[in-house]
Amino acid sequence: MNLVEFIRDYTSDEYIPFHMPGHKRKFDMVNPYLIDITEIDGFDNYHNPQEIFLNEQKLLKEMYKTDYSWYLVNGSTVGILAAISATTNRGDTILVARNSHKSVYNAILLQELKAKYVYPKIDENSSICREITIEDIKNAFADNKNIRVVVITSPTYEGVVSDIEVIADFVHSKNAVLIVDEAHGAHFGFNDTFLKSAIELGADIVVQSWHKTLPSLTQTAIIHVKGGRVDIDMIKKYLSIYQSSSPSYVLLASMFKCREFLQTEGAFDEYVDNLVKLRQMLKEKLNRLVLFESDDISKLVITTTGTNLNGRQLYDRLLKDYKIQLEMAGCDYIVAMTSVCDTKEAYDTFLKALIEIDASCEYNKKVYLQKNVNKIKPVCTIFEVFKANVDKIPYNKAINKISADFVYAYPPGIPIIAPGEEVTAEIIELIDFYKTNDLELIGLIEDNIKVVKDV
Amino acid sequence: MNLVEFIRDYTSDEYIPFHMPGHKRKFDMVNPYLIDITEIDGFDNYHNPQEIFLNEQKLLKEMYKTDYSWYLVNGSTVGILAAISATTNRGDTILVARNSHKSVYNAILLQELKAKYVYPKIDENSSICREITIEDIKNAFADNKNIRVVVITSPTYEGVVSDIEVIADFVHSKNAVLIVDEAHGAHFGFNDTFLKSAIELGADIVVQSWHKTLPSLTQTAIIHVKGGRVDIDMIKKYLSIYQSSSPSYVLLASMFKCREFLQTEGAFDEYVDNLVKLRQMLKEKLNRLVLFESDDISKLVITTTGTNLNGRQLYDRLLKDYKIQLEMAGCDYIVAMTSVCDTKEAYDTFLKALIEIDASCEYNKKVYLQKNVNKIKPVCTIFEVFKANVDKIPYNKAINKISADFVYAYPPGIPIIAPGEEVTAEIIELIDFYKTNDLELIGLIEDNIKVVKDV
Repeated sequence: MNLVEFIRDYTSDEYIPFHMPGHKRKFDMVNPYLIDITEIDGFDNYHNPQEIFLNEQKLLKEMYKTDYSWYLVNGSTVGILAAISATTNRGDTILVARNSHKSVYNAILLQELKAKYVYPKIDENSSICREITIEDIKNAFADNKNIRVVVITSPTYEGVVSDIEVIADFVHSKNAVLIVDEAHGAHFGFNDTFLKSAIELGADIVVQSWHKTLPSLTQTAIIHVKGGRVDIDMIKKYLSIYQSSSPSYVLLASMFKCREFLQTEGAFDEYVDNLVKLRQMLKEKLNRLVLFESDDISKLVITTTGTNLNGRQLYDRLLKDYKIQLEMAGCDYIVAMTSVCDTKEAYDTFLKALIEIDASCEYNKKVYLQKNVNKIKPVCTIFEVFKANVDKIPYNKAINKISADFVYAYPPGIPIIAPGEEVTAEIIELIDFYKTNDLELIGLIEDNIKVVKDV
Repeated sequence: MNLVEFIRDYTSDEYIPFHMPGHKRKFDMVNPYLIDITEIDGFDNYHNPQEIFLNEQKLLKEMYKTDYSWYLVNGSTVGILAAISATTNRGDTILVARNSHKSVYNAILLQELKAKYVYPKIDENSSICREITIEDIKNAFADNKNIRVVVITSPTYEGVVSDIEVIADFVHSKNAVLIVDEAHGAHFGFNDTFLKSAIELGADIVVQSWHKTLPSLTQTAIIHVKGGRVDIDMIKKYLSIYQSSSPSYVLLASMFKCREFLQTEGAFDEYVDNLVKLRQMLKEKLNRLVLFESDDISKLVITTTGTNLNGRQLYDRLLKDYKIQLEMAGCDYIVAMTSVCDTKEAYDTFLKALIEIDASCEYNKKVYLQKNVNKIKPVCTIFEVFKANVDKIPYNKAINKISADFVYAYPPGIPIIAPGEEVTAEIIELIDFYKTNDLELIGLIEDNIKVVKDV
């Protein structure tokens, strides 16, 4: 069975998608080969827009009121790489939220940056990362005078939003630039019930994954620049470096179609109405499972803390018994992603399923708390260890060694340890903990971790 | 009119595609939203393949008999970036063919490499670049003891092939690595009439654009590694850095479908038969226009040298009078790209059109010869000028200034001048020449060139 048949076979089974992409297979386009054209006469040049692409850019900029906005065919990944590359020089110091996407760490590597971290606090009742506080940002600047760029993820995978307006003001007062990874917040600003996009709140660069929460094909994203602190030509250069010189017109067409959709009056009204009602019912009807209070209401995050279920078990129950495919399982919570393409029926099924599982699960004193690993300090930069000689040794015997790779759970793809950092007892404990809870760990080869070889 | 409608409108007009992508709008797939899924259970992880993707990788590797092969969703661009990044350290010396794609220059920038160039000879009867000779490679190594990596484009846009077997042997004898940009030769090896792929001839890394000459969606490509000289883990790392963490299943499905097609017995027979006959007829019937003897027979390159037409005029005649859309116009030639999805009718129309134009055009003594600009020497590296302060000045007044950007004609996207190189009288003459011949020049802003600001 080839991939197309495999996917068709899966979807014919009527699984209910509570995961990305945001189009939920509800949008329509012709056979993609019919519109997969290249940069011949009349079809403009993606890397040097003059005609139809320039017009699309103009419409996008007007919609967001930015200085520069552009459609990306290599995901938010390329937006983040370009944003950081364009605003830093080799060896600069960057302040990043520890719960950043791996593309942020990759940009740190490529630019040979010194990374300083702000750690989000961990939620009191679950392992969910909370927002980045202005106090922590201020403390980081007090400790490091040379920070040029700050990178924050807001909203997070779990819908937690930081106070961008306040943070942007402070960062600007320090002559630094604020980049917001808004991959999960592309729907922000399109309905009064949603929060505002960071691009309205003072961020200098904002990157949004359109495919995550909007009806656009996977691998499509947008970058915005505003405020005059960023060299837009430098952003363009890096986008041209990191993206194919033969961009897909299928991906582009999907984004242009999504842009039209976003400009439809009341496009989100029915969705938001259903969503708000669903959230209300979940709050009222669940006794043991808890609807997490996401700032971004589009994320349905249910914590299992205090029950006999962990995140993976709840995820599996929903999949097996109700054909509900979630976006992810954390160790003590699950994330269901909603979008404007959801149906009322899907929400009814989700609610019914959770009420039934909630009724059948038991109280349990064991509380799954993610260990806070705030104390890690890098021994050297990510770049410095990138091409070092490495050993592979059992992770539980790696204490005091310098990690030569990232280890992270995916989703959400947040590093437990980054290259150049020392393996501590706490790290080993955290890996043990993820393994016990059946979370997929990337960066471990069987139970081995890559460490810098002793000289 | 949105992009989909715009393309559908264009294609309903029955233009005959002699350009990429190689599927020529003849392949079929369902509404892409229906198969645009993400990395949920059962659908594997592109950046850490274990299930369906690992199986597809195995099939691909077996087909090409390589040590490592992988599907790329960010075009050959990412294959080239990863290949060069993985085989060099900062400051290394690299030997590259001057007619390399801009992604090669971008990799030189990102890795801060010292670039040495081998210049292809220019064809005697046209401005087409010929092959890279082993003598020139040997001379370059004699002059530069520190070359670690060699990059060559073969076949070129115009179907010119270099002697990879001999070059690979020599490069390996110098403990260096050979990377072949085979973006235009993805069909190589699939029919006895085609040449062999560089991966069979000793190259260490080969990058192929599947969408260019094979039936695969635009932005799809393949990377191959063979021979044990390249660290495959390092290739994987860079592919993961430079590509979206949300890869498109539509692009992947298209490549898997193409892989199946390539394994169909006799898939290319009818195409090659038609192509060989067409080439024979063009040779016999044209009196003034000349079919260039491409090593890669799939490229139909017609030179206009010695006639009253330039490349652009021939291109326009074919488009306006015969609805034949070519791939590109050089100053004194055109390139028509054929593929296995062509029809016999398209070839008949192409032949008839050329015979008619040939009969109507006149002899002309003026010979368009691309100036050979072999003598350029870089003043500093591409990286060193990348973030320099720049002036924009008229290109014809820029003599002795250091260029701060690339200037190139697109297609084929080969730099006339690269950042860090001095603008000479010869360069100015060449830009004049391209402008006179109506070729699109990228890197000039109106008639201004970016140069490093005098201190």
